[in-house]
Amino acid sequence: MEYGQVGSAAVTDTSSAHDVVTRLTRWADDFPEPGVRFADLTPVFSDATGFRVVVDALAACAPDAEVIAAVDARGFLLGGGVARELGSGVVAVRKAGKLPPPVLAQSYTLEYGTATLEIPADSLGLDGRSVLVVDDVLATGGTIEATARLLESAGAVVIGVAVVLEIAALGGRTRLGKYPLTSLVTV
Amino acid sequence: MEYGQVGSAAVTDTSSAHDVVTRLTRWADDFPEPGVRFADLTPVFSDATGFRVVVDALAACAPDAEVIAAVDARGFLLGGGVARELGSGVVAVRKAGKLPPPVLAQSYTLEYGTATLEIPADSLGLDGRSVLVVDDVLATGGTIEATARLLESAGAVVIGVAVVLEIAALGGRTRLGKYPLTSLVTV
Repeated sequence: MEYGQVGSAAVTDTSSAHDVVTRLTRWADDFPEPGVRFADLTPVFSDATGFRVVVDALAACAPDAEVIAAVDARGFLLGGGVARELGSGVVAVRKAGKLPPPVLAQSYTLEYGTATLEIPADSLGLDGRSVLVVDDVLATGGTIEATARLLESAGAVVIGVAVVLEIAALGGRTRLGKYPLTSLVTV
Repeated sequence: MEYGQVGSAAVTDTSSAHDVVTRLTRWADDFPEPGVRFADLTPVFSDATGFRVVVDALAACAPDAEVIAAVDARGFLLGGGVARELGSGVVAVRKAGKLPPPVLAQSYTLEYGTATLEIPADSLGLDGRSVLVVDDVLATGGTIEATARLLESAGAVVIGVAVVLEIAALGGRTRLGKYPLTSLVTV
């Protein structure tokens, strides 16, 4: 199996997805703080065609994935859709404090301070399972990298990362260099 | 179309969903605070069969829904799955502060204090659209009721509410009396 920005089995869907994401994304300047330009994909997903072509293009990145890992919280919408499309299970990777103990945790560094991601410590059966990590936007890659490490600490095999929108200037692709990475749109 | 706890078109799936939810839900006492018993559905969704039968049973509640409204944040996993199954769009109903302005907002009362839900004020085209509200757990019903009101303020027609797990003692069903309500498991 090969991975890339446009997989061979997904040329048509990825092309459609590129069009719909470009057309429907709502850009907001200075949110959540001054100097940041925020990509709100809500109108892409509320559109029936938009959600379908985006989900199918992400799913085409790793059709053999046994489990989809979805990043808190906007990634959950996509992760649920991709999992249903592939007939796989889906794991919500949560921000700290949302899950009852025992949990597996992975902390990582943000621009100011640290953050922690968690999944249940048992009962998920991730050991040896192939997992695709799904999120909406790839920025610095810190959260997605921590997600992948957390899954690996549970014994999972991360076979790829798939995002809708990649903000190239923030360097996330370099940070995630060890994983096959698909983005439907790069800005 | 009729709605109910077990729809006529969904008897088999709802039955399977009941079994898998009952078997895989992880109950945690005294979380997130003393005296509360928390239902963690993570192991249900990470199981491929579990996620499929639950999503399909929820989707069968309202096969004609044009849009799925998913409640922040665990409802997003389910909402994405149901939307992909039905070929509909999906709207993430967010907690306050997650979306750039302009937004539509709906505040509601919690046991201590208030909370606010938001969706983008424009660009979603919800006016006149039939919407199914999806979440994982129905407790008091406050968040789901506020979700429905928020959608109605955008002109949407809420045609039903579908949840995986209903905690009957908390009275959510009574509070949501004006909406057809499906729960896959009642405890």
